[in-house]
Amino acid sequence: MKVGIIGLGLIGGSLGLGLRSRGHYILGISRHQETCTLACDKGIADEASVDFSLIQDAEVVFICTPIGAILPTVEKLQPILSPNTILTDVGSVKSAVVNAVTPLWSNFIGGHPMAGTAEQGITAAKPDLFPGTRYVLTPTEHTPSQAQKTVTELVQSLETEVIICPPEAHDQAVAWISHLPVFVSSSLIAASLQETDPEVAQLAQKLASSGFRDTSRVGGGNPELGVMMAKYNKEAVLRSLQVYQEQLETIKQVIEAENWDVLEMMLGQTKGARSRYNMTR
Amino acid sequence: MKVGIIGLGLIGGSLGLGLRSRGHYILGISRHQETCTLACDKGIADEASVDFSLIQDAEVVFICTPIGAILPTVEKLQPILSPNTILTDVGSVKSAVVNAVTPLWSNFIGGHPMAGTAEQGITAAKPDLFPGTRYVLTPTEHTPSQAQKTVTELVQSLETEVIICPPEAHDQAVAWISHLPVFVSSSLIAASLQETDPEVAQLAQKLASSGFRDTSRVGGGNPELGVMMAKYNKEAVLRSLQVYQEQLETIKQVIEAENWDVLEMMLGQTKGARSRYNMTR
Repeated sequence: MKVGIIGLGLIGGSLGLGLRSRGHYILGISRHQETCTLACDKGIADEASVDFSLIQDAEVVFICTPIGAILPTVEKLQPILSPNTILTDVGSVKSAVVNAVTPLWSNFIGGHPMAGTAEQGITAAKPDLFPGTRYVLTPTEHTPSQAQKTVTELVQSLETEVIICPPEAHDQAVAWISHLPVFVSSSLIAASLQETDPEVAQLAQKLASSGFRDTSRVGGGNPELGVMMAKYNKEAVLRSLQVYQEQLETIKQVIEAENWDVLEMMLGQTKGARSRYNMTR
Repeated sequence: MKVGIIGLGLIGGSLGLGLRSRGHYILGISRHQETCTLACDKGIADEASVDFSLIQDAEVVFICTPIGAILPTVEKLQPILSPNTILTDVGSVKSAVVNAVTPLWSNFIGGHPMAGTAEQGITAAKPDLFPGTRYVLTPTEHTPSQAQKTVTELVQSLETEVIICPPEAHDQAVAWISHLPVFVSSSLIAASLQETDPEVAQLAQKLASSGFRDTSRVGGGNPELGVMMAKYNKEAVLRSLQVYQEQLETIKQVIEAENWDVLEMMLGQTKGARSRYNMTR
């Protein structure tokens, strides 16, 4: 199958490596000629170009740009592609993308590969990024069944577990487990920085160990990514933050009231519940 | 030097192994005879007993019990020890301990070894627990200088970095970097559990990956430990929670107002600040 990939970073590059090694013919698009050259050298793409016309005959096109570039990309593709071409994206929020793209390109299905590494860009692309990971697809009632079938088979061929759900359910779920943690964690760092006693502030920095390291990790991540989560998943993020604030207020009141038995019960519940989360990657 | 160790768990046992291998004569005390036997077998202690009179000639005694047992232990030691005996403890909060113990035993200095493993108990004790870690000592104006000097030299001989600070500064610092993270992290799990849509709740559990895993880790820890932090460090924990709530409210308002530049600046600040924390262990 002729597969177009627009955006040859970690995800796009790894998709290229994986699909090409399974016999597909990969057409890569990047904004930068040097990335195109590298993509061909690394075996990510059979052909690569900065010119979108390269992919006019692709049967499926993966849009692997940052979220903000997905819609402009679809607009650029409209005059080039045949209506038979299936479009999919890899953005980490889905309602905003699906609602914006569907009116422009009906042969579309939203996707979100739950795979990543700390590194970014084409140099981080690797053939084994996907095996064993989950790949969410978010069809709506308007999604052509052939588009869902084709993209499902392609990403399953990369040994991913495909999860089908509505865009809104995806967005609320990732608000809980991916987006809320960023703001919870960032606020932890921000709060510690409010310490006004220099001796205490210095001690806190000196004594921080694995507990602070883990809890603050995602709050110390890429600011653009955090903004993207809030911007494109605003409603679900705000809903999660609201519920979180209520939980935190409850625990504060329990501590104020010295209800130690209740506090132990609450901490026991969260300890027990944590094991239900499937955190293999 | 004759060193008494009361409580032969991870910390007490590791202190015994470390100090004994450096030529000190270790007298171990446990509530359980089988722990005493094991302590001698493992080279943690030269002699061990359930009877406190064993340590009557010790020059220094480390109280390595849980925090709630420190004061009753000092009360049991009062009629047994000579006033020359230096007492120290290893509790993870200091003001409450120092304020309670000092009136009963003036030859006392509070301590907090910043070392640990996931496992607990005498079987987890190991000779290399301390090298490279920080060991906080919290003298007050009433602490005899000889007590500070002797305990400092003993714990430095275990290749720890000794940090001297007032009990109150220690407690506020650990509230920021150790205690607040527990309640922040536990509330994250508790909030996710509030999801009422079963499809979303199930998806959240299925899609959780490293971000949720790390941010929720300390919130899924030992409930008794969390209660201990809140109970014995209540003022500092509540103060930290209050400041944290204000930071979180600010970030929520910035998202509500769609001030994306401000949000990116805030996330950039916490990303930059995180590297100041010395999180080697």
